[in-house]
Amino acid sequence: MASTSPRVELPIEARVVNVGLPLFADAIAAQGADVVHVDWRPPAGGDSVAVRALTDLYGPRSLDIDAANAEVLRRLDHGVPFLIDVRAAIDVVPGIGDRTLLHPGPPCTWDDVCDPLRRSMRATVVAEGWASDIGGAHAMLASRDVELAAANEHATVLPMATALGPSMPVWVVANREGDTRAFAPIGQGPGDVAWYGRESPTAIDRLAFLRDVAGPLLAQIVAQLGSIDVFAIAAQGVQMGDDVHMRTQASTNLLIRTMLPAIARLGADSKTIAFAEYLASNHLFFLTVAMAGAKSLTLYAEQVLGSSIVTTMARNGTTYGIRLSGRDRWFVTEAPPVADALYYAGYGPEDAALDIGDSAVLELVGLGGPAAAGSPAVAAFLGGSMSDAARATDDMAQICAAESSRFKLPVMGFRGTPLGVDVRRVVETGIAPKVNTGILHVNAGLGQVGAGVATAPLAGFRAAVLALGES
Amino acid sequence: MASTSPRVELPIEARVVNVGLPLFADAIAAQGADVVHVDWRPPAGGDSVAVRALTDLYGPRSLDIDAANAEVLRRLDHGVPFLIDVRAAIDVVPGIGDRTLLHPGPPCTWDDVCDPLRRSMRATVVAEGWASDIGGAHAMLASRDVELAAANEHATVLPMATALGPSMPVWVVANREGDTRAFAPIGQGPGDVAWYGRESPTAIDRLAFLRDVAGPLLAQIVAQLGSIDVFAIAAQGVQMGDDVHMRTQASTNLLIRTMLPAIARLGADSKTIAFAEYLASNHLFFLTVAMAGAKSLTLYAEQVLGSSIVTTMARNGTTYGIRLSGRDRWFVTEAPPVADALYYAGYGPEDAALDIGDSAVLELVGLGGPAAAGSPAVAAFLGGSMSDAARATDDMAQICAAESSRFKLPVMGFRGTPLGVDVRRVVETGIAPKVNTGILHVNAGLGQVGAGVATAPLAGFRAAVLALGES
Repeated sequence: MASTSPRVELPIEARVVNVGLPLFADAIAAQGADVVHVDWRPPAGGDSVAVRALTDLYGPRSLDIDAANAEVLRRLDHGVPFLIDVRAAIDVVPGIGDRTLLHPGPPCTWDDVCDPLRRSMRATVVAEGWASDIGGAHAMLASRDVELAAANEHATVLPMATALGPSMPVWVVANREGDTRAFAPIGQGPGDVAWYGRESPTAIDRLAFLRDVAGPLLAQIVAQLGSIDVFAIAAQGVQMGDDVHMRTQASTNLLIRTMLPAIARLGADSKTIAFAEYLASNHLFFLTVAMAGAKSLTLYAEQVLGSSIVTTMARNGTTYGIRLSGRDRWFVTEAPPVADALYYAGYGPEDAALDIGDSAVLELVGLGGPAAAGSPAVAAFLGGSMSDAARATDDMAQICAAESSRFKLPVMGFRGTPLGVDVRRVVETGIAPKVNTGILHVNAGLGQVGAGVATAPLAGFRAAVLALGES
Repeated sequence: MASTSPRVELPIEARVVNVGLPLFADAIAAQGADVVHVDWRPPAGGDSVAVRALTDLYGPRSLDIDAANAEVLRRLDHGVPFLIDVRAAIDVVPGIGDRTLLHPGPPCTWDDVCDPLRRSMRATVVAEGWASDIGGAHAMLASRDVELAAANEHATVLPMATALGPSMPVWVVANREGDTRAFAPIGQGPGDVAWYGRESPTAIDRLAFLRDVAGPLLAQIVAQLGSIDVFAIAAQGVQMGDDVHMRTQASTNLLIRTMLPAIARLGADSKTIAFAEYLASNHLFFLTVAMAGAKSLTLYAEQVLGSSIVTTMARNGTTYGIRLSGRDRWFVTEAPPVADALYYAGYGPEDAALDIGDSAVLELVGLGGPAAAGSPAVAAFLGGSMSDAARATDDMAQICAAESSRFKLPVMGFRGTPLGVDVRRVVETGIAPKVNTGILHVNAGLGQVGAGVATAPLAGFRAAVLALGES
């Protein structure tokens, strides 16, 4: 049966002119063709105030912003963080007093501190020797006898519900190119630990162990090694299935093998053996080293004025805050729940505290979510297959302004991980950064109860776009 | 312009009946459909003698062979090798005397030993104290004062040009399920070392260091740890970019972190520090552990009679030999060159010794080439992209009878690595196993000069098929 339908004459060529927002142009370029069909949705979800700001920021002001962004991206991509020392926080962290506790996320007062972070703070107050027990610690904190300060405002980043006391040891990471230094605590490890919102005697003992044993030994080890190129290790880790946020197994092991001769020189006393056991059981050991490395670069990047790139992204379990390069102002919203979660047996969403920790600094430098595509372990949290993990990286690519030149994804043809979250793109696309993270118990001090994916609230990015538009 | 060509009426359904060789059926199954188009090439390259043998082995005798193979595959897949001890070879390796040198590959006499292996043997004779210098060692070997024996015939596997003297320490790996034990030397590490065909004083000192320092310390460490599940580490390594042959970085680091508390207990004397430095600089440390694990499984598998699965594949730099499960007979051909090679600066194919070493035992249990798809580092030798590495795995899948249930490839949807090389499939398809391997200097004792891919000669597999047909 031959066809009898009339043939429609189609034009044999079409050209598309980009009339507004850059993703249109990106989509055309990505297809490598002049002819393009866009599945159009209104930018910024049709939010006319946001569209007006974006039209300005992508239009008349784009030259200035893009120039600032180029310098921000260069700094995030080319700064080289070196681990150079381990010191007590009070000796190196700028602007803290001997009764200051640093906490993750945006600034907050005791009344606003969530349950797991309150427990971590009480444990830390006891470990510092300011109170003899948890009750005494509570009274001190409630009566404002302890100063609380956002770690991010003191060149420091803290994972999960870590509270950092002045006597606690911190990694000192220097980005020599920009002369910026950042700090992060030595990881507390898994189990019954304060950074998971525990305030048990064991959790307090672990803090004392880090201060009295691990910190001094790590100081000796780092002194022996001279300096350690943090992102050289992270880059190898990305080739070995780490996203270097939720998963740092490969990077941790590379660091430990690097440290091995120095560890052997420590001697075989009980402290060294306890330290070796702590290292052997802590596959997230590299996490805070990487965080300090990332913070040393965002500190360098945020010196640039007038950029639309995010240089702080942090949560305290109550609020979620971002800051842009060149500005001190926090754009704060409520902390989101952690969705797409896998819970330990016996726990569920009703047990889950809200998103917490400064580790999202990693997502700002091309690690974590941007590196998900290369991580089988992270894929397990994102649906199970490597294509699920690739989608997480692709989402970040849509809202990032560049690709990392050092973190390469083998499964994506050795493409660089997405680098530099641009608030304009976030608001335009409605795609918020996602952060792979642990979940703490909401109110019973039971520690970690699962892990999942937290999506940043869009409202903070919208506020940042409007503020950038007004400036 | 409407078409005026006549329409051809095609049948709307076709069914294919498999008339002979199994790859036809596989291809149909792989397409998940009854309708199949096969790009047909003559099986066994049209070799009528081989086709006649295959017709028998796939036909009347296939039930018996497939039953034997099923048991061989079960043993290769489900045996569990544990590292349980480190001992001097003479104390544990069966059937060797105190003047025996074990060598890789098929049996050979001094006249047939290639240059790099001769150098390694001379270095080992000096390290054993049988001669005071290389010249004396040469005279002993040339006059047959030293017995040479193929390591594979003594439950032992040796990487590259390793010669194993009776005083040298070996890993003792036990497959408890089958009560088989296998042995492999502690890795000599990179650089100026005998297993790369060097006979310098440094290379001889390294052998003494392994015997006098590393061996005894590793024996203490393994005794402390009790036993170590070798393939649990290898399975994690495969998730982290190791093929666990050419690349063992992740597995090595996992093993070292496991050993860390025991290492810390050794004390901080100069021996321990030298040992730690050796570990820190040796990313192939896990290679020989994995080889002993693999050999413990092939020893278990080869107890099964009448199978077409390869249970020995080994090269001595002069000849390449395979053996089938249930038979002592070696099928030997000339050793091939190492192709697809990357050479160190200043070297080229004219400098390359022929393929050498027992490490191809790994390819028989689902590691090495079968695991290439997951390894960015190995991809660099196979063309550079992950799809090149995937092709190496796909080739192995065509000649293997099963998939590993423990070694999973994330980039292939967590499919198991191809397991169990079936000589029938090799001869039928003309696809020979490929082994990723180092390249040694052919005649000047310069050590490793590159790395590449060695393809097993088909003639040995053909001879095995014909012998299986006659039996």
